[in-house]
Amino acid sequence: MKKTSIVALVTDFGVKDNFVGVMKGVISGINPRAQVIDITHEICRYSVRQAAFILWQSFKYFPYETVFLGIVDPGVGSLRLPIAIKSKHYFFVGPDNGILSMAAQSDGINNAVVLQKEKYFCKNISHTFHGRDIFAPVAAYLAGGLPLSKLGKYIDDIQEMPFPLPSVNARTLEGKIVYIDRFGNLITNIKKDILEKFLQGEKFIAHLNGKPIKRINLFYEQENSKEPFFVVGSFSFLEVCLNQKSAKDYFSIDSTKDYKIKINRIAI
Amino acid sequence: MKKTSIVALVTDFGVKDNFVGVMKGVISGINPRAQVIDITHEICRYSVRQAAFILWQSFKYFPYETVFLGIVDPGVGSLRLPIAIKSKHYFFVGPDNGILSMAAQSDGINNAVVLQKEKYFCKNISHTFHGRDIFAPVAAYLAGGLPLSKLGKYIDDIQEMPFPLPSVNARTLEGKIVYIDRFGNLITNIKKDILEKFLQGEKFIAHLNGKPIKRINLFYEQENSKEPFFVVGSFSFLEVCLNQKSAKDYFSIDSTKDYKIKINRIAI
Amino acid sequence: MKKTSIVALVTDFGVKDNFVGVMKGVISGINPRAQVIDITHEICRYSVRQAAFILWQSFKYFPYETVFLGIVDPGVGSLRLPIAIKSKHYFFVGPDNGILSMAAQSDGINNAVVLQKEKYFCKNISHTFHGRDIFAPVAAYLAGGLPLSKLGKYIDDIQEMPFPLPSVNARTLEGKIVYIDRFGNLITNIKKDILEKFLQGEKFIAHLNGKPIKRINLFYEQENSKEPFFVVGSFSFLEVCLNQKSAKDYFSIDSTKDYKIKINRIAI
Repeated sequence: MKKTSIVALVTDFGVKDNFVGVMKGVISGINPRAQVIDITHEICRYSVRQAAFILWQSFKYFPYETVFLGIVDPGVGSLRLPIAIKSKHYFFVGPDNGILSMAAQSDGINNAVVLQKEKYFCKNISHTFHGRDIFAPVAAYLAGGLPLSKLGKYIDDIQEMPFPLPSVNARTLEGKIVYIDRFGNLITNIKKDILEKFLQGEKFIAHLNGKPIKRINLFYEQENSKEPFFVVGSFSFLEVCLNQKSAKDYFSIDSTKDYKIKINRIAI
Repeated sequence: MKKTSIVALVTDFGVKDNFVGVMKGVISGINPRAQVIDITHEICRYSVRQAAFILWQSFKYFPYETVFLGIVDPGVGSLRLPIAIKSKHYFFVGPDNGILSMAAQSDGINNAVVLQKEKYFCKNISHTFHGRDIFAPVAAYLAGGLPLSKLGKYIDDIQEMPFPLPSVNARTLEGKIVYIDRFGNLITNIKKDILEKFLQGEKFIAHLNGKPIKRINLFYEQENSKEPFFVVGSFSFLEVCLNQKSAKDYFSIDSTKDYKIKINRIAI
Repeated sequence: MKKTSIVALVTDFGVKDNFVGVMKGVISGINPRAQVIDITHEICRYSVRQAAFILWQSFKYFPYETVFLGIVDPGVGSLRLPIAIKSKHYFFVGPDNGILSMAAQSDGINNAVVLQKEKYFCKNISHTFHGRDIFAPVAAYLAGGLPLSKLGKYIDDIQEMPFPLPSVNARTLEGKIVYIDRFGNLITNIKKDILEKFLQGEKFIAHLNGKPIKRINLFYEQENSKEPFFVVGSFSFLEVCLNQKSAKDYFSIDSTKDYKIKINRIAI
């Protein structure tokens, strides 16, 4: 247990209860040098898709060899398998329900195993909290240098969760809202290069929930502007924003529903 | 100050203000090797009982010698004493209002002292924030190996806060809701062995706030089920749950009120 | 990169998104020994003033050489400059919008630089997240011992944000509410010595939003009291409080509005 390494967490456990704290206690007991970093514990309850997105959009900012724990696990204790993945530069640990797939595939998967070796688990395994009893101890051992192969037998496939791509036809680029941040910025699934290729230098008008978006700006603060605009945000996707206001409120977005965003090319 | 050790926190300080941050600053200044782990800061304001429960349900997942700071302290600055406890495997620091008792007694109390030695406090002690001025520095010193006896004189008793046990009569087991987690699961004070001994192989029907509970399941996810059920949760108590729904909402539970849960044995 | 040091954070980023987590990932990649402490991420969105206040009221509890990151940055990507400050005992990093000024000036500013050297930034600098791309890496390097002068050229002035002082006339001391904590305590801009000098041993009656405050107490818990009172709080300012109740609710305070508090001297 010589190596010092990082365990980074994405869960829907919140911070009200003791779930995250006891996971950190378990990790410290196994690997006192592990440094635990919270990415977020505020994933919407049971939203495997949102957690997969956040993990995907976060992993590359961490040092190589970081062990990522992704736990949104409505099927805990049932048939879904607990797995660990070695990708090109990182490790990923969690339930095999798709939560790890966007990030691990983006980095390139080397190997994946099903977690079977109980010597690397807590002693009494509950049916309701594998985060504490299986995933945290396994992450602590991996961060300490334990080879993936010690944890269980290799599996060929993991559960996939493809990221929804925008669709393009003659004059319309159609995307969707995939995430809403604390500031009410609406993150779409449209990358800037896709928009530029679609526009080919022409102007555009976009619509979301019945309201138009007419501009794309470099940054959030626009002098005297009360109109919504696109920004290429830190997630590298187009975001719908307002200056110091919530676009979520402006467009009356209900975060539990799906919304399409249509961008139409306007010939000059 | 050679030892590296853990200071784990349970408070009602929240994370909006700078209370927890400055406590960590104070700890780092005294003991740069101390590793601080947040169990939770979202205990309901002034709820000593809830904090005592969470501390009790968390401590055993931490490495031996961990120093637990439990601070819900509506009487700060008044007559209640600041104390530190050495239990069989751990240290506990906080106000003597019962917050430490369930956990420390569960582990077995070796010694307790009243915190009197101002050389181990911050220089200017406020009347309103002993977390920063007394408890954080004392925890930092204990985590660094300072003997308990240096902190003040021994006391024989600490304020107790007994955990409410369920009651049993002929055909009814009566418990109560003691905690509600982020997912809306309702944690009762009934352990599985108590239920099994009570049932003696017979069936049961339980009632909570006028609605029935008829089943006990192994885990949260139940195919096609919209009915509530019991699970033996990660707290090792019976929890009232729904599959991917909030039992708190289903049973119309107001978290500021007390609720009884009655389990009746049904002869087969 | 020999030194172990602390990076302490004050932001309005919240903990729902991955903003803070990826900043910590960036810091760990540059300086694995840096210890990151969250002061708060729950500053009201865009409230540079609130962040400046919290940073000011927190810094002195941290060990010397701590690097403070203060990021509330509605102008990110626009003309406001990114800066770093060496004060008498600490470092401060953030946008030059006033957020750092109360704290840095209180400690005494030695030098300030504009952040220009891209070798100390992340490789691809977004227009929307300088916390990750500029401020976090710079803080990581400073915590590792990099001299301030390496980061860019010296500047003579930083953006100031003066703390509002109470006003005094013949028989009235007029202050304002500058912060509201989690417990609903209302922190004023009036220090105890100002009040004592004003009162000169006479009694007082204060008014806030149409309701009176008649007493000043040593601590929060007052036996049988349902009336509001002042306490000299942990911020060292007079706070308006109730015993285990929210003064914010009692006085019907809307946290987005400004409130004056008037203290009148009563001849005995």
